[in-house]
Amino acid sequence: MEKRELLYEGKAKRIYATDNNEVVWVEFKDSATAFNGEKKSEIEGKGALNNQITSLLFAKLKEENIPSHFIEKISEREQLVKKVEIIPLEVVIRNTAAGSFSKRLGVEEGTSLKKPLVEFYYKDDSLGDPLLTEDHIEELEIASREEIAILKEKGLEVNRVLSVFFEELGIKLIDFKLEFGKTSDGAILLADEISPDNCRFWDAKTNEKMDKDVFRRDLGNLTDAYKKILAKLEGIQHV
Amino acid sequence: MEKRELLYEGKAKRIYATDNNEVVWVEFKDSATAFNGEKKSEIEGKGALNNQITSLLFAKLKEENIPSHFIEKISEREQLVKKVEIIPLEVVIRNTAAGSFSKRLGVEEGTSLKKPLVEFYYKDDSLGDPLLTEDHIEELEIASREEIAILKEKGLEVNRVLSVFFEELGIKLIDFKLEFGKTSDGAILLADEISPDNCRFWDAKTNEKMDKDVFRRDLGNLTDAYKKILAKLEGIQHV
Repeated sequence: MEKRELLYEGKAKRIYATDNNEVVWVEFKDSATAFNGEKKSEIEGKGALNNQITSLLFAKLKEENIPSHFIEKISEREQLVKKVEIIPLEVVIRNTAAGSFSKRLGVEEGTSLKKPLVEFYYKDDSLGDPLLTEDHIEELEIASREEIAILKEKGLEVNRVLSVFFEELGIKLIDFKLEFGKTSDGAILLADEISPDNCRFWDAKTNEKMDKDVFRRDLGNLTDAYKKILAKLEGIQHV
Repeated sequence: MEKRELLYEGKAKRIYATDNNEVVWVEFKDSATAFNGEKKSEIEGKGALNNQITSLLFAKLKEENIPSHFIEKISEREQLVKKVEIIPLEVVIRNTAAGSFSKRLGVEEGTSLKKPLVEFYYKDDSLGDPLLTEDHIEELEIASREEIAILKEKGLEVNRVLSVFFEELGIKLIDFKLEFGKTSDGAILLADEISPDNCRFWDAKTNEKMDKDVFRRDLGNLTDAYKKILAKLEGIQHV
């Protein structure tokens, strides 16, 4: 596979074309950003950690019959993925109240939700990624009613698999953000990444945070937290 | 009917008990507030105008078989209504993009929506009345799935009647906020008020604003705008 021109540079990744029109080359950056880009930092090693964690989790999901755009990891900080057109929605699945959910709705952080809850946010930095209702999504023609139902279902499916998986590792999956894309034939496919950048992982016993909240809230060394997650994942991997 | 103790004082109304346990006495205040109470003013005559407008609109809805808590207007600024327990949701119905909708979602003010859109906001000043999804409403136990469906249906029904009614008066009903309450037997009943304080009314020809945006955006004399609405309503009323 040959790496070609840069197609897109986001806050955490660069996407390059390849000689195969159906495949793109992803490079994970070391940048950490939070609060819609207001807080920024370069954290050496973060890109490589996220690449490894994302690759392991997409492989795990594949084993459980949940396909994604992921093809293979090709270096410490690079992977090949199927080319998709990203649907501009952040699909957030929550098991426990935390972060913006707690703040917006006045629910104490750590409160277990009655059932997993799916939220949609409009991926638009200039608007500050506002929360959307399903009627908004339809009105703005971001996705059809049927597509919204698919996104919800797929999000909850990923949640079921990952919640059990992390529970076995002694980690509570508090909430996480997914993105989906459309392939050239219009199918909806899980895309982007699944890493401590967009998941909240709490130690099941101590509630210690092992995710980007360490950076957002200045709780310690970010890569140490991400390394713990990776070590636990690799532990299972090698059994 | 005898007026008894003050039960509740809100931004725009005082609610008193009466000698009938099923009936409360509403007094409309002259206070104008906006932006979650950050902008405030006393505007002489506003309470009386809102009482008159609300009374006319609830009577109109009753003619169209849409019941509400409204019983009768008893003075310039007072009315009797059925006692209900208010469901802490602002039910917003939008026909045209304006205000917070335009700002949050980047849709130009004045854009016609494909179909009337219902939004729910959590009536909680300390949280700044956040937008809620239906899943949030269920999670927070504010209303059940069935009750949410009833609120939506009733909101859209009020919208159908009022949109046609105002159109005949040369006024575009852009959006409006309703509140609902539960009666002692658990039935959901339209409550609160329907006035230029919580509706956007635009002149159908000139798009001149005849509602609280005149106050929010310092566009002129608020009572003049409200008087225009009342005059149009009374014109129809006396035909």
